[in-house]
Amino acid sequence: MPAPTQATVETVLHHIDAGLDASRARLFDLLRIQSISAQPAHAADCQRAAEYVRAQLADLGFAAEIHPTPGHPIVVAQHQGPPGYTGPHVLFYGHYDVQPVDPLSLWHSPPFDPQLVDGPHGKRFVARGAVDDKGQTTMFLEALRAWHTAGGGIPARLTLVIEGEEETGSVNLEPFLIANKDMLKSDVALISDTNMWDIDTPAVTTRLRGIAYCEVTLKAASRDLHSGMFGGSALNPINALARILGDLQDADGRIQLPGFYDRVKPVTNAQRAQWDALHFNEAAFLGGIGLSKPVGERGYSALERLWARPTADINGIWGGYTEAGSKTVIASEASAKVSFRLVADQDPNEVYAQFQSFIKDRLPEGATVTFQSHSSSQGIEVNTDQPWVRAAQDVLAAEYGRPAVLIGCGGSVPVVNSMHRVLGIDTLLMGFGLDDDQIHSPNEKFEQRCFHHGIRSHARLLAKFAGG
Amino acid sequence: MPAPTQATVETVLHHIDAGLDASRARLFDLLRIQSISAQPAHAADCQRAAEYVRAQLADLGFAAEIHPTPGHPIVVAQHQGPPGYTGPHVLFYGHYDVQPVDPLSLWHSPPFDPQLVDGPHGKRFVARGAVDDKGQTTMFLEALRAWHTAGGGIPARLTLVIEGEEETGSVNLEPFLIANKDMLKSDVALISDTNMWDIDTPAVTTRLRGIAYCEVTLKAASRDLHSGMFGGSALNPINALARILGDLQDADGRIQLPGFYDRVKPVTNAQRAQWDALHFNEAAFLGGIGLSKPVGERGYSALERLWARPTADINGIWGGYTEAGSKTVIASEASAKVSFRLVADQDPNEVYAQFQSFIKDRLPEGATVTFQSHSSSQGIEVNTDQPWVRAAQDVLAAEYGRPAVLIGCGGSVPVVNSMHRVLGIDTLLMGFGLDDDQIHSPNEKFEQRCFHHGIRSHARLLAKFAGG
Repeated sequence: MPAPTQATVETVLHHIDAGLDASRARLFDLLRIQSISAQPAHAADCQRAAEYVRAQLADLGFAAEIHPTPGHPIVVAQHQGPPGYTGPHVLFYGHYDVQPVDPLSLWHSPPFDPQLVDGPHGKRFVARGAVDDKGQTTMFLEALRAWHTAGGGIPARLTLVIEGEEETGSVNLEPFLIANKDMLKSDVALISDTNMWDIDTPAVTTRLRGIAYCEVTLKAASRDLHSGMFGGSALNPINALARILGDLQDADGRIQLPGFYDRVKPVTNAQRAQWDALHFNEAAFLGGIGLSKPVGERGYSALERLWARPTADINGIWGGYTEAGSKTVIASEASAKVSFRLVADQDPNEVYAQFQSFIKDRLPEGATVTFQSHSSSQGIEVNTDQPWVRAAQDVLAAEYGRPAVLIGCGGSVPVVNSMHRVLGIDTLLMGFGLDDDQIHSPNEKFEQRCFHHGIRSHARLLAKFAGG
Repeated sequence: MPAPTQATVETVLHHIDAGLDASRARLFDLLRIQSISAQPAHAADCQRAAEYVRAQLADLGFAAEIHPTPGHPIVVAQHQGPPGYTGPHVLFYGHYDVQPVDPLSLWHSPPFDPQLVDGPHGKRFVARGAVDDKGQTTMFLEALRAWHTAGGGIPARLTLVIEGEEETGSVNLEPFLIANKDMLKSDVALISDTNMWDIDTPAVTTRLRGIAYCEVTLKAASRDLHSGMFGGSALNPINALARILGDLQDADGRIQLPGFYDRVKPVTNAQRAQWDALHFNEAAFLGGIGLSKPVGERGYSALERLWARPTADINGIWGGYTEAGSKTVIASEASAKVSFRLVADQDPNEVYAQFQSFIKDRLPEGATVTFQSHSSSQGIEVNTDQPWVRAAQDVLAAEYGRPAVLIGCGGSVPVVNSMHRVLGIDTLLMGFGLDDDQIHSPNEKFEQRCFHHGIRSHARLLAKFAGG
């Protein structure tokens, strides 16, 4: 099979430019479907969104089906690529479900009535799901459509998995991957659900932090006590919990769990130099949320602390009397939710065990403790020497006329772990969102410029896979 | 005026013994009135209870009136004592209101249908208010009745103040005391709202701890943050609060506020010897609430820690996500309610200021803090050499055939401070409750043996005041 010629690629890109309004119209049709996965009342809307995506893929020559799950369905579509195709089998993952819209009163337009409005970077789309992830998923579908219509057909062997429960924890995705492992066997996963560095600087995300999210409850007396009658003799579990959790970090911000840093690798000098060159303005980053001085480990740059160092944050704490006024009570128990953001090679189960040891080692006599693990995922560090990363960098550099940067993301994308664990494949994260897109918030938006570049970049990437 | 003779006292005591069933019947009539001060629906019941008490005192020859307040009324009754009386003017304080009854399902009989039941110490009364404070107040009324009926008349100059808002914080009492200062001018206050050491060992309470109850809120970012996007850079106010409050005490249980112990006086050797002789079983005390090892300051006995040393207890703490499951949030603020039990001479306002300094000295850059003071009262240490204390000890020793002990109480009785602050008088605390009376809880009870001894002891005390 011959690789696509440069002329063919140019034809496809021209077709994309000429068809941008139509691409946007198809995205807007999808945005009008109220596929809020968290709300049972919108189950039929989720089904409709799945069907809308399936139909588009069937139109493009894919074998496209809807797989029911105990929750919302998963769209699966496959195409063998051109006859004689010898390139990689690429698994594209996206999701058609969106976050709830509340508080509705803060939206400037109805969240499911997509608007094309003017912004500082030109036109933008405003709607729930504009970028996360209907907008980003549609970019890939539109790139496929351009190849189908103007490029002589789908140029690579592809499987698409578009699920409907990403915003509610993807609970049915991993069982689906396991049950359909053979059908889904592929060489690399591609996801478009991340951000650029800024609107002019394309990026490939090569690091994701993992998480170990734990809950701890300390129990002392068998009932709540009067603080006058018992204060000075009876153990106060809130005092004890504050004392223990107050020691999570030392004065330099180093996390004190035993063995916590054993598997944490330093970033390479090359990586650090690239991040330093981004001139990240941490003061502005914090100023935007009303803070001044950064916290975190002493001795690391801001981007290292955000992308390449683990954290310990108490996400919630509660115990005793929390209503208005005063009640002189010594509570019988106190609880906290504590999460650790992890970097590659740290094992969330090991960290959970370290957390338990840390608490038990400091547990006052007479107290008992219970633990609960809420979620865990491993951190990801993509090997930046693998061909997919280089292919994406080449494509983005060609599209934007400037090098793409390799960035991290402080959060987690659990599906990346599932792809690795179940299917044994790495994931290429090429996304076109911006930090100010307000995902999960009122007035979510997507820049048309990002959408347009995104379709073109995906079209280029497909050519690359095909050897172009 | 001649002092009552021993023969008169014996006549009064015999009358009390013979009339015990009638005394109990009058208490039961009062217990049937549902005078729950906290519940507006019971306002008329509070009025009825006040009227019931007023009528009894009027029957006994008192000038008895009901003083309205913005809340529930206060009964005030005065008697000049016998002609030529030269003893002290005694102000008896009690309260006719009771705590709510919930959870009703845990009561074995209706809370306002008083029951006479058998227990390990003989008969006992079960009802809301059985001991707190209708039972204890009735003991004094019945002692007055015995003197009135069998002793030749009320033997001392007395003012009674029986309020109806003790269980809701006595908010209208102090304004009443201030407005009626001249009318209420007296030599000593007498309150029967405390406990004995045990059913065989009478006690005078000579120490009450005070309190400084504070609330603190730490604020960091201007909104809740995603812990993945911001963790490692943004200040977490829950981590900061835990860290600060975890340092409230050192490893020896010493409270770390600057200057906190400056005004704390050691107990005398004599006092310590008396407490040691009580052989307080702290293991049993804690075992009853499911605890084993005591906390508190190293180097002090259990009773010293409970009665004569200050404490620092976090009564409530809250911040961030506290529902089921996980939410990866860095909260914008965190709060705690912290109270300090104080001993005599510690100034609650000074302690509140020390608490603020303690927090501010440890406040991380970028955080702001706000404080609120919920309540404060000074600790009380009665001078045990004053004649009233010795009179009570003599009376109790005569009644029980064994010495009365001088005990402390870890809690506060705010009215004692008001009496001192507004009227300039000390308070004698002679009570007949037991630790297991379940005040404020379902199945509140009062031992008939305590009730009977209590009436007799008050009758004896009245003779003492009159010089008998």
